[in-house]
Amino acid sequence: MSVTEPTTTHDLTAPQFVAHEGGKLEVRATKALRDQHDLSLLYTPGVADVCLAIQEDPDLSRRFTARNNTVAIVTDGTAVLGLGDIGPAAAMPVMEGKAVLFKTFAGVDAIPMCLESGSVDELVDSIVRIAPSFGGINLEDISAPRCFDLERRLRERLDIPVFHDDQHGTAIVVLAGLINACRVTDRQISSLKIVVGGAGAAGVAVTQLLQLAGATDVLVCDSRGIIGSHRNDLVAHKEMLAATTNASGRTGGLGDALVDADVYIGVSGGSVPEEQVAAMAEGPMIFALANPTPEVHPDLAHKYASVVATGRSDYPNQINNVLAFPGIFRGALDAGGVQISDEMKLAAARAIADMVAEPTAEQIVPPVFQDGVAEAVAAAVAAHAV
Amino acid sequence: MSVTEPTTTHDLTAPQFVAHEGGKLEVRATKALRDQHDLSLLYTPGVADVCLAIQEDPDLSRRFTARNNTVAIVTDGTAVLGLGDIGPAAAMPVMEGKAVLFKTFAGVDAIPMCLESGSVDELVDSIVRIAPSFGGINLEDISAPRCFDLERRLRERLDIPVFHDDQHGTAIVVLAGLINACRVTDRQISSLKIVVGGAGAAGVAVTQLLQLAGATDVLVCDSRGIIGSHRNDLVAHKEMLAATTNASGRTGGLGDALVDADVYIGVSGGSVPEEQVAAMAEGPMIFALANPTPEVHPDLAHKYASVVATGRSDYPNQINNVLAFPGIFRGALDAGGVQISDEMKLAAARAIADMVAEPTAEQIVPPVFQDGVAEAVAAAVAAHAV
Repeated sequence: MSVTEPTTTHDLTAPQFVAHEGGKLEVRATKALRDQHDLSLLYTPGVADVCLAIQEDPDLSRRFTARNNTVAIVTDGTAVLGLGDIGPAAAMPVMEGKAVLFKTFAGVDAIPMCLESGSVDELVDSIVRIAPSFGGINLEDISAPRCFDLERRLRERLDIPVFHDDQHGTAIVVLAGLINACRVTDRQISSLKIVVGGAGAAGVAVTQLLQLAGATDVLVCDSRGIIGSHRNDLVAHKEMLAATTNASGRTGGLGDALVDADVYIGVSGGSVPEEQVAAMAEGPMIFALANPTPEVHPDLAHKYASVVATGRSDYPNQINNVLAFPGIFRGALDAGGVQISDEMKLAAARAIADMVAEPTAEQIVPPVFQDGVAEAVAAAVAAHAV
Repeated sequence: MSVTEPTTTHDLTAPQFVAHEGGKLEVRATKALRDQHDLSLLYTPGVADVCLAIQEDPDLSRRFTARNNTVAIVTDGTAVLGLGDIGPAAAMPVMEGKAVLFKTFAGVDAIPMCLESGSVDELVDSIVRIAPSFGGINLEDISAPRCFDLERRLRERLDIPVFHDDQHGTAIVVLAGLINACRVTDRQISSLKIVVGGAGAAGVAVTQLLQLAGATDVLVCDSRGIIGSHRNDLVAHKEMLAATTNASGRTGGLGDALVDADVYIGVSGGSVPEEQVAAMAEGPMIFALANPTPEVHPDLAHKYASVVATGRSDYPNQINNVLAFPGIFRGALDAGGVQISDEMKLAAARAIADMVAEPTAEQIVPPVFQDGVAEAVAAAVAAHAV
């Protein structure tokens, strides 16, 4: 690469560019290197004993290197925010931002690993190969359905936590919000008719976690309508949804699914017409999470809903993954670098919900900058580690 | 992994272990994240514009991410210090130490990437895949002869600096020392009879760089003796040495090579008997760089030599790569992330030599903690970038 005049149409003097000048991360030494004595301890010859001790007992790498506090934020840039497949170099600002969140909220050292994309086989091989440097792997912004296979295979191959945040982070915060929405409206998750709009990474994980939390009546819609055993156009992860949701065999589109539904969770983008919102059950809960344009505008949703949540920071009830992932990894690392189980995800959701002292329709999740959320999540996650 | 009692024979309360407690690195945010406003600039929604601008013009990643100040220290742990093939996890303390040196001496953010080993093909694939996150690749402690192929192929595939420090860092500092040893003894590199003991990573690179600097009479010895066209047992990189050194067709062992030699550069380990040292030319230069046990003990070397250098910090003239690599990468990154050329290596060696104001037999290279060395190397390297 060489330095040339930028060829962008963007105004590089805008505040978001100024804020990104020089990037957002640095690597710092935690031990002072001032003189030959320091050098002999931190580097040769002293370092050799530390290496040999780790060779004898690999677990010591958790104590004498930074590994156990270090998470790789791994992406191939194929599904970045709402921007799509912009590639690894262009994904970097998001990953650096995520690393800032990891450090700020939970003291986790996170390193962006923006990978050239490839087959799932190739990505698995590369991530397994770099894993000895890390205490955990946060998968990020990797397109569906590849992300499902990738995560499953990495969990089989690695003995450190592997967590696809677009799936599970979203699901955990949605569940936290739903727990408090039920408290506010005096309902039970197990009795709710739930429609999940979107069958990608977030839709699948939200569905699974809500079911683990007791949801019994879930319909999932993709762009072709309600997923169920009547569909013969389904890829593997939607086949799985067909087998585990829609027990009553409903058919039709999202509008059909929403009739008499208690909950709509939009994780798909697109727009839900007002008449479909109006056809939901009395006082429904509407989580319209597409960003920046919710599937149901909050003003419209409030005409009908008892509780409204979005992904946006300028409306109440922001369903933001940052409430979950820093504490999730903090807890998994504190527990010794263990895999993140379903029980740990449920515990994290309950911990987030419990951080709202008195839930109201306008506050079903804590605000992002509320003190203590990551600590509470970490403690709950670590307590549920096996 | 789970937390268990350590099973090491090492005393974990020794100073070098205390110095390593919790590791030696952390990742820090360079921009403050205090409130929703900061979040909207450093993360969503502001980050999206930065991503899109980089998608339009990938060079902007050098400006708006930390990439251009970030180097991966890549090892597979197959040739760590003098410890051999101890694997990636046990190699981590060395790589963290190296990252501390990068930051302390040149402000470079370096990240240990300890890889599960594999074939050269597999390592190339993995390193190419992670390259979009980095402004440069420092290869480290990778066994020969794999390191030669690996570096060559990475240089072909990547448009960022790739530098195997065990080869070129060593060669640059050896050349710097030899430049000043010649000043002290009023000799010219071009007229020296030079013997390189060792035909691994360092031996090959030292030989090549000394030849680029004008050396004409170089013999390289491996464990079987002098390398030359008479040998029929040579792997590829030694075939190359046979073709480019030993023009006079010398045969025999290291002892034969050393007869009348002006310079011995030991990068092999082992021990050179006193009678072989005594058989060298009058007032030879002896660089016995094996660590911790030099091939010729400094006290013995001083009986014969005009100049003695080792790899040790407790004797004068420590040939230490840290004089080179921080400034080398600083210069290559400052020049726009360019490949490191032969001219840049020569310029770096001259810059290091010139940092010794008045060379003496006891000071042919600057001490590791002398101010300004990395800056001078960086300036020289950047000035010679194409």
